[in-house]
Amino acid sequence: MAESANSDMRLGVAAAAFLDVCVEPSYRRLVIEDAPAVLGAARCREIEDATVFGAMVAALMARHKAGRFEVPDPKLAGRMIASMLCEAALQLPEAKNPKQMRAHTLAIVATVLSAFDPGASGK
Amino acid sequence: MAESANSDMRLGVAAAAFLDVCVEPSYRRLVIEDAPAVLGAARCREIEDATVFGAMVAALMARHKAGRFEVPDPKLAGRMIASMLCEAALQLPEAKNPKQMRAHTLAIVATVLSAFDPGASGK
Repeated sequence: MAESANSDMRLGVAAAAFLDVCVEPSYRRLVIEDAPAVLGAARCREIEDATVFGAMVAALMARHKAGRFEVPDPKLAGRMIASMLCEAALQLPEAKNPKQMRAHTLAIVATVLSAFDPGASGK
Repeated sequence: MAESANSDMRLGVAAAAFLDVCVEPSYRRLVIEDAPAVLGAARCREIEDATVFGAMVAALMARHKAGRFEVPDPKLAGRMIASMLCEAALQLPEAKNPKQMRAHTLAIVATVLSAFDPGASGK
């Protein structure tokens, strides 16, 4: 139980850190806006996989091994959930209330994760 | 009840159609690979919003109005869920078993949607 709370906390911290990195202006300009045009989509995806995106997927794979992310294709599901964070990160800098949007984003991801967790409350 | 089953079916059909359009080679090349480099990320997002991506978000907003998509920011959540489909669509053409991956993708999205549906079974 303590370990599962720990895993939730780590994933929450990782998701929040991911959002915060993505809205940092220089990261945003270089990696999100310029890189796809300069490097091409394929190379961009390789870089994503080696950095923050890959870290989120790895955290979800660890969660799968711990029996808390029950899905037939955890890698696919992990990438799909990481991409939810990317989408929110793209919109965050234009948000009227970025702090509220950041909180909503993390709450949405937590709801999604609990949907795949056999031990989540409400199941 | 019949209306809610109908809404599920429509959303399932829309999600499947979205995946099928994204893997169509000319769409993939033009819209997914070339457009971000040629048009820039911002213009690309405008086009996405006016087409398939926007249609998915609109379907989820309708679901929200029907009380079946309970989330503080349905537009944000809708975009995040539509982006899950985009992510899967990017990987589909390279999948070893595209038919299975397509089925897994749609099952993952269905699980995510049920997490926000107060009337979903298991709640």
